[in-house]
Amino acid sequence: MSSSTTTINRSSQVITCKAAVAWGPGKELVMEEVELSPPQPMEIRIKVVCTSLCRSDVTAWQSQLTPIFPRIFGHEASGIVESVGQGVTEFQEGDHVLTLFTGECMTCRHCLSTQSNMCQVLGLERRGVMHSDQKTRFSIKGEPVYHYCAVSSFSEFTVVHSGCAVKVRSDVPLDKLCLLSCGVAAGLGAAWKVADISKQSTVVIFGLGTVGLSVALGAKLRGASHIIGVDTNSDKFEKARLFGITDLINPTDHEEPIHQVIKRKTNGGADYAFECVGDTGTVTTALLSCCDGWGLTVTLGVPKVEPEVKAHYGLLLSGRTLKGSLIGGWKPKSDIPKLVDMYIRKEIPIDQFITHDLQFADINKAFELMIGGKCLRCVIHMPN
Amino acid sequence: MSSSTTTINRSSQVITCKAAVAWGPGKELVMEEVELSPPQPMEIRIKVVCTSLCRSDVTAWQSQLTPIFPRIFGHEASGIVESVGQGVTEFQEGDHVLTLFTGECMTCRHCLSTQSNMCQVLGLERRGVMHSDQKTRFSIKGEPVYHYCAVSSFSEFTVVHSGCAVKVRSDVPLDKLCLLSCGVAAGLGAAWKVADISKQSTVVIFGLGTVGLSVALGAKLRGASHIIGVDTNSDKFEKARLFGITDLINPTDHEEPIHQVIKRKTNGGADYAFECVGDTGTVTTALLSCCDGWGLTVTLGVPKVEPEVKAHYGLLLSGRTLKGSLIGGWKPKSDIPKLVDMYIRKEIPIDQFITHDLQFADINKAFELMIGGKCLRCVIHMPN
Repeated sequence: MSSSTTTINRSSQVITCKAAVAWGPGKELVMEEVELSPPQPMEIRIKVVCTSLCRSDVTAWQSQLTPIFPRIFGHEASGIVESVGQGVTEFQEGDHVLTLFTGECMTCRHCLSTQSNMCQVLGLERRGVMHSDQKTRFSIKGEPVYHYCAVSSFSEFTVVHSGCAVKVRSDVPLDKLCLLSCGVAAGLGAAWKVADISKQSTVVIFGLGTVGLSVALGAKLRGASHIIGVDTNSDKFEKARLFGITDLINPTDHEEPIHQVIKRKTNGGADYAFECVGDTGTVTTALLSCCDGWGLTVTLGVPKVEPEVKAHYGLLLSGRTLKGSLIGGWKPKSDIPKLVDMYIRKEIPIDQFITHDLQFADINKAFELMIGGKCLRCVIHMPN
Repeated sequence: MSSSTTTINRSSQVITCKAAVAWGPGKELVMEEVELSPPQPMEIRIKVVCTSLCRSDVTAWQSQLTPIFPRIFGHEASGIVESVGQGVTEFQEGDHVLTLFTGECMTCRHCLSTQSNMCQVLGLERRGVMHSDQKTRFSIKGEPVYHYCAVSSFSEFTVVHSGCAVKVRSDVPLDKLCLLSCGVAAGLGAAWKVADISKQSTVVIFGLGTVGLSVALGAKLRGASHIIGVDTNSDKFEKARLFGITDLINPTDHEEPIHQVIKRKTNGGADYAFECVGDTGTVTTALLSCCDGWGLTVTLGVPKVEPEVKAHYGLLLSGRTLKGSLIGGWKPKSDIPKLVDMYIRKEIPIDQFITHDLQFADINKAFELMIGGKCLRCVIHMPN
């Protein structure tokens, strides 16, 4: 199947490899030698090729709320299958794959429905362990090192459930493709699949990171006439225009509530609003920025502080809709290969999101850049 | 046009008539002689035939928050056009009409869109005055008596904007049809137009008043397989089965949170949840009672106390949608005549919602019945 020359034929034994381990909330990652189990039944072990840093990694790493440490973060990655566990027929050594932070078992009621991507077996894992046995595959001197989203790609090798990876064609550069593992796919899907943006519509996007700008790109490709970007960091504005943003607003430049500025610019409110900051107060602002009647607010962000979304009931009764979007509503195994094909056909310019390429040893630099608002995607390259 | 024998040929002058006036929050209505202006340009004056009491009338009457008194409540009504103001060509004396608490100007961006029923000119009026000039048409000894939703049907005659009434065929009894002016239309539209309930789906309805049971009827007619009704008043349960409710839950019978009971009964959550109580806490419960992936919560109620809906962001990110429904998403002028036709074809059994017929003089009795949870719809008949 695979024509890659990088196929590795390690036997399926415990291996040791380098991983960037977080020992506590907000503590600089430390490069450690870790032991990694062989893949258990229905799991695969992957040689990570590239992993990009997503804001959710940083949020979870900083969070004091549910400290699960030591832990290996990283969930947006590309790699090559190193070995497969018992019962795996979908993958073989050498296959090129993207990791999936929310998987697809292909058999539960949600996987069988056309309406859901919320696999009930391999959904978002929050406890730092593997879905199947609630244990870790990583350890240091026999002590468990926890996973993140059952992916943990800040490691030279990782083990994931075979439902938490998708095979991709081997003729596409993995250092670009990793962005389709989360960020860019999340934004495009929110625009296309969840909101189904229509031509000539008005769109407002809160947060101009990779996810927000992917929404903008999706809106632009759908022919939206007016795409307003809102961010408190004006340094992001120049780049934002590349992705189709037509109007830029920095809330700190305005005395009045920002939804009023947006309502004025859009003749009563935008058709679609997207929350890509990860702040529940901004979800409320997004709802307020939408129009009566058909205004749709899509929330994509993972809140850093207050988890409760609040909205005056009148915003709903007057015709607004609020919905969430996790990885853009895509069924990852089924849909991500279609995005790969679009990339090949040059329909989605993923490369534009990559602002930095870093070596694995410099991974903490990626965290600094993200926290400082100085990057879109930092792609971290693993040693060969 | 009209073949009615009840046509009245009063000239378009100030008339006096009896109205049930509320003098303060929660104070028993007092039958008063009121003066009623002639219809102003684009308005019509209506002889009210029947008006039914809706829970929103009671909520607004009880509210201490925005006391607008003296006031004439009532917004769910049928009547006959008595006279028309300048410029009105759509109606003539003798036409049978239903009043509309949210109107349709037919020319604004929302009226022109197929996606909205949120007329920007004749939308929900909250200040107790008429849309056009912010004044009242009612007075007592020259002092203004305020409107409710620009309808005020607890009066022998009323004046409404011509966009706030819909002409209906004259061969249908107006004492039944008045229910399509708000409650029954609101529930059916929430089920059909807003939620678009699919066959074999599971539905949970919070609040088994007229609106909730209209949702149930709509769900039943769509072929839902499982329609769960939730109410703290078990007296409503027997009647509820008539409208298609298959399972009944009284939260006071359960120790555990009611959404857990519902999730168990529905294999992980209902496909659709409807909030028909008017309580924002119940909106949260409704969201919790829906399934991941495609669960849709529709909020219809007007909250009596806390106006803020609260929801953990995870409920949205896992695929739930929250939307509001005002008069069932119907464009009232365009759509209500279709419901009238369905009634004639015996497709929607409106009569089953009428539990009491009362004379206008006994209107306070209707309030007592509603507050005591002893009725669905009380139809109040005006004197001939």
